[in-house]
Formats: sequence, structure tokens, C-alpha cells
Amino acid sequence: MSEGRKPYSEMSNEELEALERKLKAEYKKIQGLGLELNMSRGKPCVEQLDLSMGMMDVLSSDSDLRCEDGTDCRNYGVLTGIPEALELMGDMMEVPYDHLIIYGNSSLNVMYDQISRSYSHGVMGNTPWCKLDKVKFLCVVPGYDRHFRITEYFGIENVCVPMLETGPDMDMVEELVSSDESIKGIWCVPKYSNPTGNSYSDETVRRFARLKPAAKDFRIYWDNAYTIHHLYDHDQDHLIEILAECKRAGNPDLVYKFASTSKVCFPGSGIAAMATSLNNLEDVKQQLKVQTIGHDKVNQLRHVRFFKDIHGMVEHMRKHADILRPKFEMVEKICEEELGGLGIAKWTNPKGGYFISFDTMDGCAKEVVRKCAKAGVVLTPAGATYPGGVDPHDANIRIAPSFPPLNDLKTATELLCLATKYVACTKILEQRRAEAPSPVAAQ
Amino acid sequence: MSEGRKPYSEMSNEELEALERKLKAEYKKIQGLGLELNMSRGKPCVEQLDLSMGMMDVLSSDSDLRCEDGTDCRNYGVLTGIPEALELMGDMMEVPYDHLIIYGNSSLNVMYDQISRSYSHGVMGNTPWCKLDKVKFLCVVPGYDRHFRITEYFGIENVCVPMLETGPDMDMVEELVSSDESIKGIWCVPKYSNPTGNSYSDETVRRFARLKPAAKDFRIYWDNAYTIHHLYDHDQDHLIEILAECKRAGNPDLVYKFASTSKVCFPGSGIAAMATSLNNLEDVKQQLKVQTIGHDKVNQLRHVRFFKDIHGMVEHMRKHADILRPKFEMVEKICEEELGGLGIAKWTNPKGGYFISFDTMDGCAKEVVRKCAKAGVVLTPAGATYPGGVDPHDANIRIAPSFPPLNDLKTATELLCLATKYVACTKILEQRRAEAPSPVAAQ
Repeated sequence: MSEGRKPYSEMSNEELEALERKLKAEYKKIQGLGLELNMSRGKPCVEQLDLSMGMMDVLSSDSDLRCEDGTDCRNYGVLTGIPEALELMGDMMEVPYDHLIIYGNSSLNVMYDQISRSYSHGVMGNTPWCKLDKVKFLCVVPGYDRHFRITEYFGIENVCVPMLETGPDMDMVEELVSSDESIKGIWCVPKYSNPTGNSYSDETVRRFARLKPAAKDFRIYWDNAYTIHHLYDHDQDHLIEILAECKRAGNPDLVYKFASTSKVCFPGSGIAAMATSLNNLEDVKQQLKVQTIGHDKVNQLRHVRFFKDIHGMVEHMRKHADILRPKFEMVEKICEEELGGLGIAKWTNPKGGYFISFDTMDGCAKEVVRKCAKAGVVLTPAGATYPGGVDPHDANIRIAPSFPPLNDLKTATELLCLATKYVACTKILEQRRAEAPSPVAAQ
Repeated sequence: MSEGRKPYSEMSNEELEALERKLKAEYKKIQGLGLELNMSRGKPCVEQLDLSMGMMDVLSSDSDLRCEDGTDCRNYGVLTGIPEALELMGDMMEVPYDHLIIYGNSSLNVMYDQISRSYSHGVMGNTPWCKLDKVKFLCVVPGYDRHFRITEYFGIENVCVPMLETGPDMDMVEELVSSDESIKGIWCVPKYSNPTGNSYSDETVRRFARLKPAAKDFRIYWDNAYTIHHLYDHDQDHLIEILAECKRAGNPDLVYKFASTSKVCFPGSGIAAMATSLNNLEDVKQQLKVQTIGHDKVNQLRHVRFFKDIHGMVEHMRKHADILRPKFEMVEKICEEELGGLGIAKWTNPKGGYFISFDTMDGCAKEVVRKCAKAGVVLTPAGATYPGGVDPHDANIRIAPSFPPLNDLKTATELLCLATKYVACTKILEQRRAEAPSPVAAQ
């Protein structure tokens, strides 16, 4: 780039002022283009959706809609899922088929229902949370806004734990969980995390499985949303399977594990599942059987007939990767080209999942998002990755590269970089002015 | 029948004893047949399910899966339902399309969620039920066991209100609802009621709409499960539309109305909906948007493409009626032939819905169900139509004629009649023996 690789912090005021004028002019030019782009949510793009159109053909009026145990999937019944769907989702989630329940179309809904049940009825005979004065939840930050909103909705205090390279700060998690009985759970996206894209290290998972919670009804909410959502064939993150690890550690009931096919086939028309210990399953089923007669078995059957087995699903995910990989790589390349070495931003280079986490200088994220919006590019609101929408550093922006076409994504990322530079420039100049001896004092 | 039309109560002890011996012999004979029949739940039969197989063909890999407003139904989004599905379900439920939310596959689940939300968060700003010492619900009896189980599960006291020819005993409903602030709702199946099969009269609906509840958060849970489920083309029950009636009465927020396509196409793979006032909808949406991103839009689209519109749905229901009508009529005919005039049982002759309500003499239902089970015919457990499974009269049995083939249904109904006679005979003889002067006193 024309401004070179010199970090902004090493530039003189004059250099920065010249740069600011230049960036402002560039920004005005882009504003004039009338862009209308959206990089705000982790939605698959049209080409990805097209991959699953065959799912509309696997069942027809000639099909036998009985599942392998002979049950007519067209009628009432089967609370926890048909056998072949349990096997498929069990394989996807790396758990035995008898350790899970298949639900409806939304894993978010399953998580909500777990919190709701714990609130109204308690976990395995423990006091319902609604009868307690104080309930707290740990939130790994930056993290997934919709997780935080569920606990918030139930009046639960969200307590932030920072996400490190290796996963959540486990010293902090261990300290809090073992000392505070009001802490009842933690929200985790352990693999290709939302939004950082990195995965929990082996040591982190082992430490999770060995937690000694003060609260008997503490549970890890392990939202393994991106379990098979790799970008590369050979360079994949691997996560220790948490249920098995908890069992080995003598803590079999510590985890609720969630997944869905939302980003495998059609979001909103997939199937979601929860895997957990047999004790927890029994506890959950006592509620589930009051709530419903059963979930959509025809859709379960449709999934199995389409993917056939976990190998089919994995092959299918390679096609997704072929579409997503160039998008991720382009965002990363533009960021490197535009921002590398300037000391005003950092970003992640994930090997899977749906997001890139982007950090501006402290105090700049809101203004960067605002500037992008004013030039026609919608980003996830700054702060959205923190409980209550408040990022104490005002630095984190979640980039969702999946949905826009490659060309739009290029434009949007270039704008993001430009806005980041422009805002950083102004910020540094403001800071220097504030720190400089005041003109009055100098007189 | 060979024992004639003489009511049992007018028979001499000798006549009854002879009859008991004869019925016992008949019963033993049937027991020897090794029957395995199930008349226990309101499930559509295979021929009914076959009617909807075309639903598997309306979407294919060549289909445009955008709905009429252009939304790609394959992707995330749309919290309350796609426009054409709102119109179809609105027409089915006789409410404007903007007064409803389309949910997932189960209206039971929707009702559960309303209770759960009221328990945890309260209704429209009122105190959450979990913070109250006492919450009560009215249950029209006999009624639907799964309704009662939801309120039971939340520790709510179920209070019985008897079902009359015209609907619930409205004197009692008005008295209770207006005087007791802890009464927060009432479970209703207003049309072709489960299990009695009769529908609420115009006066009953009007009185419902004009209730003056002591509790501001009192709501009528109006489960219109059988709204278009007629048995006859021209002899149909008609129900005043409750939402409009409530609005006219100045009580717009009084009702949550539920329905689903479970018994229109495939139970468990249909779509459910709730209709209510705009105020209530807003209240519900505050929770719903935390719980999920949206329900299964592809399945909503599948329904609309299959039925096209309400006329298509009504035509479809006529085909169901053609299958169900002979089953209902056969049960009623056998009951009349076997039990008519004997004074030991009565039953309903509904014009729609899924059930016939059958009453034995007081204190006989459990034994009749037991005797049927021992001869291989499973009926809904006696008492199931009452909260807690306890029928104070031990008289009511819910007959579900839909599922078994006609021939099996014939055998099962004959057994039911035989068991009813046998148990009644024994019961009357026991009563007479208990009432007769004791042999010692007569000496």
C-alpha cells in the first residue's frame, strides 16, 4: 500500500494528518458507490444451499417412509429420534447413538429449553434456578451473542471469561467454578469457535472434564456447532471428545453437547441434537415427554436417506469447504495486504467454522462498524460478541465471510480495512493531542 | 341381543347371575383368540397417511424454494412464518394472517412453551407464575390428558370443570375465574372436543369472551385441534370464532388459540400455529426471538405447495372423513346394538374429531379396560381423561376409532361391549348383596 508498512504509532503527527486526509478522500469515494452489502451473520450462501437440493428428491410419493425398525415415520411417536438418525447424528457428534436425543430444527432452541427447564424445574433434583436468589453463567468472550441472550433473558448474570489461543482462560474458569455455587454453567463453542475460529486445546478439554464445580447442577454447554465444518482437507483442528473425557475423569454428567445440521444442509430445516450422559438424558426426557409427542421423523428420515452415513456427510462438507475456503482466504489476504504491519488491527485465520474475528485498536470498533454502515456495508454490530452487547475494549468485530459473493466480499473487506485505518488514524491523533501539554500550560 | 332390551337394573338376581355366567363364557372364548389390537390413541390410520404422500413430491431439486416475498426458505430467518403459510393457517384457524405465529411440528409444544414462558417470565408484564405461591388452572373434564400433564408438570393445581352438552359448565367457570386470582387459565378443546366429540354452543363461546377474570394474566387456552376435522359434508358443528368474539366483547387479549396440521397430513411432520391478539403476539415474540432463529420454512412451503389454499385443505379433509366415518358409525352401531336400552353405558355420537366418549356405570371403567387388555385390546387407560389420571366416577373411557382397520375395530368394540356388560352385571350383583339384609340378621 502507498502508506508503506510503517506502524501508525511510529508515524509523526504530520504523517498521520496527511494520511487521515488521504483516507477520508478514499472513504468519501467509496461512500459514493452506493454499496449494499451484508457481512453480518453466519449464513450459508446460495451455492452452499444448492449443494443440498438433492435432499428434496430422496423422499417421494413412492417411498417407503418406515424407518429401519419398522416405525411409520408419517405417524405420531418416537420421542428421542429414529434409530438411523441417532446413528448419523451420533457419528457426527462422536458419541454413541444411545447418548443423544434428536430434536427439531434448531439447536439454539434445544439450548434455550435446557436453560428454561433448569430454571423452572432444576437439574437432576437440584433446586430450580427460579427459586435461587442468584444464578451466574460463564461466557467465553468474544463469543456467540445468541447464547448470552438466553441466559440474560432468564435474569442470569453473565460473567465474562476471556478466550485465549488455547480456549477459555482455564485458570479463571477453574477458580470461579470451584468457588462460586451460584455459577451454574458455561457457554462454549469449542471447535472453530464463534467468532475467533480457533479450537480448544487438548489440555483445555481435559481441564474442563476435570472441573470440580461448587454447584452440583453446574453443566458445560458445549455447542459443537462446527464439528465437521472444516475449510481444509488435511489441515484440520481436532477436539478431544468431551463426553468420553468427562467419563474418564469421573465426571460423566458434567456436559450437555449440542449440534445440528443447520450449516450442513438447510439452516432452519435441519435436525438438531443433544448428547449427554444417560443420567442427564433421563432427567431431560421427564420434561420432553410432557412437552411433545415427538419431533419431525420424516425430516430425520430425509436426512439419513440423503447423507446415507457419516462418510456421506463428510464428503458433503468438502463441497461446502470448496465454496467457503476462497472467501476466508480472500478476507485474510486483503487484511494482510491492507493492514499487515500497521499495528492497528489483528485478525484470526481459522481452519474451519463460519467466522473471522477482527480486532481494531481499543475504542475503535463501533466507529469502524458505523463507517462501514454509512458506506453501505452491514457488519455484525460491534460489541455483539460480548454479553449485553458491550465490549469493554470496543475492539472486536465478527466477520462472517460465508454469505456474500466473492466480489462483494472483496469490496466489503477493502472497506473494512479502509475504515479501520481511517478510524485508527483519527484515534491516534486524538490521543496524542489529549496527551500533549495543553497550550495554556505551555504559555 | 339374546338377553333382550330389559335394563339390567330391572333384572332379578337370578336373571343377572345367569347372564353373568353366559358373559363370562363369552369373554373366556374371546380371550382364547389371542387378539392384539390397540384403540388407545388418536392416530390416523395408514390409509389416511397415504392421502398425503403427494406432499413428498411437491418439492424437488428443480423447485424454486423462495416464498412469495422472495425469501429463500432454505436459509436462516423469518421468525413467525412465511406469508403464504400464515395465510393458509390463518384461513384454517379463521383468523387474519397477521394474528398468528407459525411454529414447528407440534401444537402441544407450543402450548407447553406458553405455560413455560408464563411460569418463568409472566404474561404481559404480570408476575411470573414461579414467583407466586399458588397457581391454578381449570380443566374441562373429561378432557385431553396431555393438556393436564403440562400444568401438572409446572406444579399448577388442576381444577376440574365438568363438560356438559353445551361445553364446560359456564356458571362454574364464571364463578371461579371471577373470584380467584390464582386461576390463570383454562384448557379447552372447543370443537369436536377430546374426548366427548361435542362442540361448545354459541352461548358458551360468548360467555367465554365475556369472562371477567380476577387475574389480569388469565388466558383461555383454546386448542382448536379439530377445527376442520368433520365426519360429514353437511352435518357439521360450527363454532363462533373466539378471537373475534373476544375483540367484540372488549376482551381482545383473553385467548391463545392453537391448531396444527398433525391430523391433516403427517402427525409429527406438520406445522403448528398459535393465533392471538397483537398485544399477546408482541409479548410472545419477545421470548420467541431468544429461543430460535425461526421454524422450518421448507416444511411450511411444502404444506402450501401441497394444499395450495384452504379450499384444497378442506377437500383433503373430505377424504379423511370418508375413511373415518365408517369407523365411527360402526362403533356407534355396535354400541347401540349391544348396549342400547340396558342402562349400563352411554356414549357420544360426534360429527367430527377423533374420539368417542364412552361412560360405563360408575366404578366400572378401570375393570372394563383391564378386562379388554387381558383379552388383547388396549384402550386408553380409564381415568386418563381426568387430571392426575383419576376419574372420580371411574366411568369414562376414551374410544379412538381412527387407527385400527375396520375389522379389528369391530372385534375390539364388541369386546368392549361384552366387557362392559360383564363388569356391570357383576357390579350390580355385588351392590345388591351389599345392600341386602345380612343372612345373620335375617335368621
